[in-house]
Amino acid sequence: MSRSTRLPLAAIAAEVGVSAPTVSKVLNGRFDVAEATRVRVEAALARHGYAVQRSRAGGLIDLLLSDVHSPWADAIVRATVDAAAQAELSVVVSTERARVARGDWLEAMLRRGTDGLVAVVDPVRPADRDRLIGCGVPVVLLDPLGGPTDTLPSVGVTNWEGGLVATEHLIGLGHRRIGMIGGPREFWSTRARVEGYRAALGGAGLPADERLIRYGTFSEPGGLEHTHTLLDLAEPPTAIFCGNDEQAVGALRAALDRGLRVPQDLSLVGFDDIPVARWLSPALTTVRQPLEAMAAAAVRMLARQVEGTALDTHRVELSTSLVVRESSGPPR
Amino acid sequence: MSRSTRLPLAAIAAEVGVSAPTVSKVLNGRFDVAEATRVRVEAALARHGYAVQRSRAGGLIDLLLSDVHSPWADAIVRATVDAAAQAELSVVVSTERARVARGDWLEAMLRRGTDGLVAVVDPVRPADRDRLIGCGVPVVLLDPLGGPTDTLPSVGVTNWEGGLVATEHLIGLGHRRIGMIGGPREFWSTRARVEGYRAALGGAGLPADERLIRYGTFSEPGGLEHTHTLLDLAEPPTAIFCGNDEQAVGALRAALDRGLRVPQDLSLVGFDDIPVARWLSPALTTVRQPLEAMAAAAVRMLARQVEGTALDTHRVELSTSLVVRESSGPPR
Repeated sequence: MSRSTRLPLAAIAAEVGVSAPTVSKVLNGRFDVAEATRVRVEAALARHGYAVQRSRAGGLIDLLLSDVHSPWADAIVRATVDAAAQAELSVVVSTERARVARGDWLEAMLRRGTDGLVAVVDPVRPADRDRLIGCGVPVVLLDPLGGPTDTLPSVGVTNWEGGLVATEHLIGLGHRRIGMIGGPREFWSTRARVEGYRAALGGAGLPADERLIRYGTFSEPGGLEHTHTLLDLAEPPTAIFCGNDEQAVGALRAALDRGLRVPQDLSLVGFDDIPVARWLSPALTTVRQPLEAMAAAAVRMLARQVEGTALDTHRVELSTSLVVRESSGPPR
Repeated sequence: MSRSTRLPLAAIAAEVGVSAPTVSKVLNGRFDVAEATRVRVEAALARHGYAVQRSRAGGLIDLLLSDVHSPWADAIVRATVDAAAQAELSVVVSTERARVARGDWLEAMLRRGTDGLVAVVDPVRPADRDRLIGCGVPVVLLDPLGGPTDTLPSVGVTNWEGGLVATEHLIGLGHRRIGMIGGPREFWSTRARVEGYRAALGGAGLPADERLIRYGTFSEPGGLEHTHTLLDLAEPPTAIFCGNDEQAVGALRAALDRGLRVPQDLSLVGFDDIPVARWLSPALTTVRQPLEAMAAAAVRMLARQVEGTALDTHRVELSTSLVVRESSGPPR
């Protein structure tokens, strides 16, 4: 049907019983139209020969992080931009900080339209979640802090196995007093990693000394402070398993500040395998998170929802792997 | 004017002599309408009481990088997302890689609309540039590889002064044979930093030994390889000024691999001050680029163009500053 013979938008609006700007919004793939209305208008537009954009937001997906100020967040951004490019999508990067600053981040996102949201922030507020679902915006949680109990689809990693394997590696080297610096106590990942550590100790018949388990921020200062605390114990550990690589950077600094050699006097294992892990001297033994694969899985889950294809599974859990470098060795 | 009494979009289309979908596109702030047509349609819409979105892309700006696989690129993304959030803008992050993969990245960007482009890739192809200008999309170049000769507005740093100050610092510590590892020879930043290094040597009456100047990729392996080459010289340098921090990571690794202590046997200075600089042992002395301020300046220059305010200047050059840490000291 040629453009000139098509019914004007105003006539379509009258037919459906909505305003002309609403029809125009639907035609242009904007999201600030109630889902039920959108469906009716799309049907009417299609009947009259208008092509509604299939990818309503023009190939844009959103990535929401709590913050971008960590190498881990940097790696997630990088992996998501790469994975999205493969799927011919572009990524809008936003942070919780922006969300608070802007008052209604969600409103702005819906107004301009999005093909879906990868949220690395959790929990998604119930009101926001209902709004997203109501507007038909697909959401995938990436590494949800609250664990895989959520009703939204999610991609995570095997945190428990990671903690287990890291600790078994240190036990295998001959360590018997192994410290653990976890992340914040309320994070799912912290809980799973600490439980993996406990399971490894239990499996080797070693007692879990609660004084050897510390909780704190996933940061370099956090790792530094807790390492000093652990090394100040009457019976200090000969190895420390850090909840992330940034903490391990702080742990290494604390050891060097005390004149200790790593790994001869203290073994260190991190978690994540961000680029800095290779660059430290000694290079860091760490539990690798497959961030590229995680981001790719999240983008794929979004894309399937956009196409209207059912997901094979609501929860994807990818494997961690131990990368042995120079910071772990037998105790003296 | 109430919605019900407004002229239908089709009537406005007839009045201006364009199609109804074109009117709808303009109303919704889409960019895939010729600038001249857009202006006429906007005027007609305004006359008839329609509110055209002032921020046509709904507060989206684009950041185009050649690649996201470097800590420097990570830092640029982080800084731009933060600066944009302050201005109530969201950032679409894309890479040259995506641009090639997607065939027509520019087309996709214009179709969905953008409030402006921060390009960290250079040169912008002439055809793309003309297209952007034709569509009225503001562009700001960030740290253009080709230097400030471009006709587009740009934000850069004082690379020459950075090279000068870094080298003067080493001369001040007593070094007389100072190596320099530059980036790729064709980059503006490399040229400016190497010229700053030469100027410092000249200012101190020291000869510039061409064997001490190396060119290569801004990467850790690049730094490692060139450091070995420099230390293999019959008269090796006692200090090396690296063109970026990643090269300095490789230089440090090369020194440690040869059993040299830093800074006692070899002083190192980097460029950028990415987070890893603080985390190395010894922590890296480096020339800090004010990436946050650079990104903020680029976003501000875009915002002024969107508002239609004239720029105070076409080129903003921000100051570098030397951050002295542990990797530089007097020669033995």
